[in-house]
Amino acid sequence: MQQNDIKAIDGFWRAANYLSVGQIYLLDNPLLREPLARKHIKPRLLGHWGTTPGLNFIYAHMNHQIAARDLDAIFLTGPGHGGPGLVASAWLDGTYSEVYPHVSRDEPGMQRLFRQFSFPGGIPSHVAPETPGSIHEGGELGYVLSHAFGAAFDNPDLVVCAVVGDGEAETGPLATSWHSNKFLDPVHDGAVLPILHLNGYKIANPTVLARIPEEELEALLRGYGYQPYFVSGEDPGHMHPAMIETLDRALDQIHAIQRRAREEGDTTRPRWPMIVLRTPKGWTGPEAVDGKPVENTWRSHQVPMKDVREHASYRQILESWMKSYRPEDLFDDHGQPFDWLTARTPTGARRLSANPHANGGLLCRPLDLPDFRDYAIAVDSPGQTQAESTRAMGRFLRDVVERSQDSRNFRLFGPDETSSNRLDDVLSVTDRAWNAETLPTDEHLARGGRVMEILSEHTCQGWLEGYLLTGRHGLFACYEAFIHIVDSMFNQHAKWLDTSRDIPWRAPVPSLNYLLTSHVWRQDHNGFSHQDPGFIDLVVNKKASVVRVYFPPDANCLLSVTDHCLKSRDYVNVIVAGKQPQPQYLDMDAAIKHCTAGVSIWEWASSDDGLEPDLVMACAGDVPTEETLAATDLLRRHLPELRVRVVNVVDLMKLQPESEHPHGLSDSAFDSLFTLDRPVVFAYHGYPWLIHRLTYRRTNHHNLHVRGYKEEGTTTTPFDMAVKNEIDRFHLVIDAIERVPGLKVRGAHLRQQMEQRLIEHEQYIREHGEDMPEIRDWRWPSLPGNGTNNGA
Amino acid sequence: MQQNDIKAIDGFWRAANYLSVGQIYLLDNPLLREPLARKHIKPRLLGHWGTTPGLNFIYAHMNHQIAARDLDAIFLTGPGHGGPGLVASAWLDGTYSEVYPHVSRDEPGMQRLFRQFSFPGGIPSHVAPETPGSIHEGGELGYVLSHAFGAAFDNPDLVVCAVVGDGEAETGPLATSWHSNKFLDPVHDGAVLPILHLNGYKIANPTVLARIPEEELEALLRGYGYQPYFVSGEDPGHMHPAMIETLDRALDQIHAIQRRAREEGDTTRPRWPMIVLRTPKGWTGPEAVDGKPVENTWRSHQVPMKDVREHASYRQILESWMKSYRPEDLFDDHGQPFDWLTARTPTGARRLSANPHANGGLLCRPLDLPDFRDYAIAVDSPGQTQAESTRAMGRFLRDVVERSQDSRNFRLFGPDETSSNRLDDVLSVTDRAWNAETLPTDEHLARGGRVMEILSEHTCQGWLEGYLLTGRHGLFACYEAFIHIVDSMFNQHAKWLDTSRDIPWRAPVPSLNYLLTSHVWRQDHNGFSHQDPGFIDLVVNKKASVVRVYFPPDANCLLSVTDHCLKSRDYVNVIVAGKQPQPQYLDMDAAIKHCTAGVSIWEWASSDDGLEPDLVMACAGDVPTEETLAATDLLRRHLPELRVRVVNVVDLMKLQPESEHPHGLSDSAFDSLFTLDRPVVFAYHGYPWLIHRLTYRRTNHHNLHVRGYKEEGTTTTPFDMAVKNEIDRFHLVIDAIERVPGLKVRGAHLRQQMEQRLIEHEQYIREHGEDMPEIRDWRWPSLPGNGTNNGA
Repeated sequence: MQQNDIKAIDGFWRAANYLSVGQIYLLDNPLLREPLARKHIKPRLLGHWGTTPGLNFIYAHMNHQIAARDLDAIFLTGPGHGGPGLVASAWLDGTYSEVYPHVSRDEPGMQRLFRQFSFPGGIPSHVAPETPGSIHEGGELGYVLSHAFGAAFDNPDLVVCAVVGDGEAETGPLATSWHSNKFLDPVHDGAVLPILHLNGYKIANPTVLARIPEEELEALLRGYGYQPYFVSGEDPGHMHPAMIETLDRALDQIHAIQRRAREEGDTTRPRWPMIVLRTPKGWTGPEAVDGKPVENTWRSHQVPMKDVREHASYRQILESWMKSYRPEDLFDDHGQPFDWLTARTPTGARRLSANPHANGGLLCRPLDLPDFRDYAIAVDSPGQTQAESTRAMGRFLRDVVERSQDSRNFRLFGPDETSSNRLDDVLSVTDRAWNAETLPTDEHLARGGRVMEILSEHTCQGWLEGYLLTGRHGLFACYEAFIHIVDSMFNQHAKWLDTSRDIPWRAPVPSLNYLLTSHVWRQDHNGFSHQDPGFIDLVVNKKASVVRVYFPPDANCLLSVTDHCLKSRDYVNVIVAGKQPQPQYLDMDAAIKHCTAGVSIWEWASSDDGLEPDLVMACAGDVPTEETLAATDLLRRHLPELRVRVVNVVDLMKLQPESEHPHGLSDSAFDSLFTLDRPVVFAYHGYPWLIHRLTYRRTNHHNLHVRGYKEEGTTTTPFDMAVKNEIDRFHLVIDAIERVPGLKVRGAHLRQQMEQRLIEHEQYIREHGEDMPEIRDWRWPSLPGNGTNNGA
Repeated sequence: MQQNDIKAIDGFWRAANYLSVGQIYLLDNPLLREPLARKHIKPRLLGHWGTTPGLNFIYAHMNHQIAARDLDAIFLTGPGHGGPGLVASAWLDGTYSEVYPHVSRDEPGMQRLFRQFSFPGGIPSHVAPETPGSIHEGGELGYVLSHAFGAAFDNPDLVVCAVVGDGEAETGPLATSWHSNKFLDPVHDGAVLPILHLNGYKIANPTVLARIPEEELEALLRGYGYQPYFVSGEDPGHMHPAMIETLDRALDQIHAIQRRAREEGDTTRPRWPMIVLRTPKGWTGPEAVDGKPVENTWRSHQVPMKDVREHASYRQILESWMKSYRPEDLFDDHGQPFDWLTARTPTGARRLSANPHANGGLLCRPLDLPDFRDYAIAVDSPGQTQAESTRAMGRFLRDVVERSQDSRNFRLFGPDETSSNRLDDVLSVTDRAWNAETLPTDEHLARGGRVMEILSEHTCQGWLEGYLLTGRHGLFACYEAFIHIVDSMFNQHAKWLDTSRDIPWRAPVPSLNYLLTSHVWRQDHNGFSHQDPGFIDLVVNKKASVVRVYFPPDANCLLSVTDHCLKSRDYVNVIVAGKQPQPQYLDMDAAIKHCTAGVSIWEWASSDDGLEPDLVMACAGDVPTEETLAATDLLRRHLPELRVRVVNVVDLMKLQPESEHPHGLSDSAFDSLFTLDRPVVFAYHGYPWLIHRLTYRRTNHHNLHVRGYKEEGTTTTPFDMAVKNEIDRFHLVIDAIERVPGLKVRGAHLRQQMEQRLIEHEQYIREHGEDMPEIRDWRWPSLPGNGTNNGA
């Protein structure tokens, strides 16, 4: 029995290796029916052989276990460079030809399989969205374990086999993600089986974990909380039985842990098994080329021999290498794999390449959302009420969590800031996930908690990505400045979404939602190091089809935007909103109208009476909105004849031309808001030049004067942050006076007053350490008769 | 003897704790001469108490060891929120009053010390550039160990005491930076003594490492390669002797390791000591407030009691708390610390707050640079020679390394890409630093190697920052797309430099130099996930006074720019240059002239004869330059009467107005290059809108048409990457035809030809898998009589 298993596993492995080498090197002659000639070889040899045979080995063995145990399992390929391996296995599984029928499971299909790899118009060299069975892009390294745990959360029957490359293991995000086991609930969550693949080398160097004593490595992994099992060697005769036995042991142990937790109520944190697989880099490849060792060295990392087209001797090496897998033993005369290879591999949705969890949109159920209008802040008159906007959002999220308790398809992620960010109402219905030790003084920690907090933005992001890509929903709340920690992860996820949109068989997945709070204008207490609104600039660099940026100015707008984002698919939504008490402007009906429009004139704050204004005061962001309104208030009080229009922007993408972004306003719509020729003073939440970048093609762009954050800050008062960056009400009034034709003279007195107020402000805060009462207590309107009409 | 030591250490500790609490709470009445009243309390209580007493404890004990052993040591505060503690100790040391004389070491100074903390016009709440003795900003978490190792490299007599917070320990960058011990050479490098400070809590949660069994934690730390010693408790009567004994043991062990390596030639990797210090969060603070436990819970994280102004009962708690440190025992009637507190603390440059390594500019020696002109690529005629630009740079860097072998003040950093990036000539004079196991097949690995490679961009960046801030020089070579991994670290470093410039006692430090190579246009083989030029956008968001971005178009320009950057101080320099063979345009004299100007007209490529051109073809970046020249070649061949001007931009900051950046061109200089009214087709390396952002105020901005990367890419050919993003020669010609008045008709035939070429390109690459020979073999000029004059 076991001998037959080994024969089948070994056959699958050899076939996958053969197909991997073929993809890297061959244009044609896939079954080597004739001697390899120049014309059969690709002109550019692009790909990574080194990691591939190890991945193929694991895949073949997982296949065996899945079939034997009827496991529900997915495969995450940390060393994503091993793209050809995963493609090869998917082709052997039959999945590849199902989703790409032109790459049939026969000789012509094999030829196309080889040719398309790393070839123009073909497929990428890494594991990618195009790869069936993958939720993990193989470009950047470091995230396979956080993705794996994200996939396992709330999938109690799923086993996520996560291959960690030993290069990847050196990255920071990977190094801390081992600790994810303290956040996994063995009752409601599935299992992650990490396989640390030590093949010893990176691009040109050995790897750290392959070059420490095994006892040190074992201590490290035990210190991370795992029970490591070692499988080491290169002789298949030894390695196959060792791997079968070890996988058996690990999967039995996973089963036993889950049974103890689920049936016996054992609540101790389990020591989950993991495997250390030590095999040569470029295993089964050429031992040496040109007298230099290749197998088991870094020279196997990419392509063991270059210039194969030009050198007949290299072609001979390649041919012998491919023939060493005994293709005649693997593929019939039509190029179809013999039945014995796949007779005992999984079928249908059990195939690693076809498991629906790896195409999570297929399994996605919409969130059962409460009506966000029920959480409205009462706003009788704009700017009179104060509230913490994110607290209102927290009440909404609380009920989102509560309604998803049974479906278990929503989680909230963040680096230990849920309470700090005023979302702690969610803790009245759930807890923070925690499976490490607890003390009697602890609050809101539990194994089944749905709030995921670890002081690692990388891990939060990785968990969430894994959770979303397997078809569930979530939101990542983060301090604005520190979201830059995951810039590169955001890039990769946005690229994944962008590519996935063009792959017909990939079903849409829930959007990646960020709440950026504790933002730049309210980091006066933490100081300069915590002030950076630049993530938005990064986001806007990505394809318009996948990115959305929102600046809800108050709580009701935040509720409307949040509801919209939680319902959306395949986007990255960035919501920027403060957590501090702030004026509330729009009642819920007005908020919905405003958010639906994305940008609109606030008539209740304007004095243009629907006519052409003298001046547009525009704003995006909660603090800029407050300062703009305060400035407008000052202008209207002191220069009552001035026709001021206030325009508020919720949806930043509205500013772009419609040719650049699907949300973009038409030029005529833009002109009707921002006029053809009137000065526009625009107070913007982030770095001011982004507004120029978005609007430089607009008619009235030359009249646009933008204020924003310009890297001025320290530990000071909230209002002083605005003053330091000249986005405060006094500077905005001065800006207006300078820009409206004819106002320099008429407004000279007001300008003097503003300059005086700035001096007083500076004196006051230095003396008292807090903002002047008139600033703290400011409410719109101070002008009788204004602002009672709340229509947006 | 030891009892006296303990008394002094305990006194210093109590004094630092007293001064820390005073900073957080008090405006006045620093010696509590009268009962605490409302007016004595700050209106806004901003700061972090929780971590502070532990930091003060370590500082006091390190003081004792430094004095007893005459140690050369610096102190890196991972939990940078504990700012008040480090400020307090610096004040007790006397350093604070030396650098800030108005904060004298007496009662009025103490009052100013208290008032200024987290107060407008005062100092930040975190450890910051303003803090004497610090090279480690306490804003973002995760980098204390990589900074510490960077500081220790090439400082053989230095001990870097690095306090790792248990919150910080959850971050990815920190989790992997423990492995830095595999890259430290005990002969030529100093020592890092990590102190993992387990105080148990983050903002609102327990920490992972505080809530795993001690044996698991010990296994983890042993797995990281350390010998951990545990000091746990809260009773000072136990803790002081335990800490003295443990520090004694650790420092003895460091000394023994260094002696064995240096005197006995013991080359085995040592197991360096480290300390786990487990103390209550908010140690010595209020046990409970309002019936809820505070000490030893997360409630100590920031300010244990809010609203102290308003509540007399809180003021009583505060007063008792401060008096519990027995201030009368610590400070004399003038507010000066009694001599017994500081009699046996270090003096002069041995003080942790005054060690010159923590103000590295003081110790900085200029690099002994060879003449970069000696590495010139011979360029007889522009565009005829092909060379790998970074390889020329590698030869220059080789000699920089060689000349710094004795001074040991230069290292090269990168994530395993030195060879891949064609800088491997440096390996002919040095090796990669490596202190883990080696095998006979290894090449260029050695303990003393000056090339630092680990597959962690975070660790590379952290090491380099630590190395620079202690006054040495370096360069970080990185794949362009993955430099985003350190976006947030760049932000913090740029902010550090920006702040430091305004601190008179901080001496300038060598610039942080990036070489971004394997860039977006040459990631055709790795595909979409490796394509992202957005780091530049991030960099340009930071203050103009600290950031510089260079696009040398060829090897000689790259050499000139590299030389310039290695000599500069206090900047972040970003150099973007490809590693693939490419045309070389300028001989060394022309290159120097061009780089000095930063932007200039390439007359040899232009056909405007010094007159007003019909068209400006502008470019920045090596691939855009090549495509622009090829397009210009086509235009001149097919439309010989067209007057084309070619402008090349090396120094991106030249495009900004002079009011925005010190390198910015005056408007008249800009106009003289880009004309007042002629169409400009600008081929730019990165996302195109950055050029708009930089130039939107320029006269001719409305005629600027920018091509750049617009997130189109996959695994394809190099030229196809350009085509996909419409920055290739054919599209640029079409752009020109569309934009030059009157050319639509005259150029219609050429336009058709270009469109035909694009179709042929697509067909060719799909058939052959590589670019058309005419593309691969293109050389400037194909027009007789052009390009023989090499003047820039």
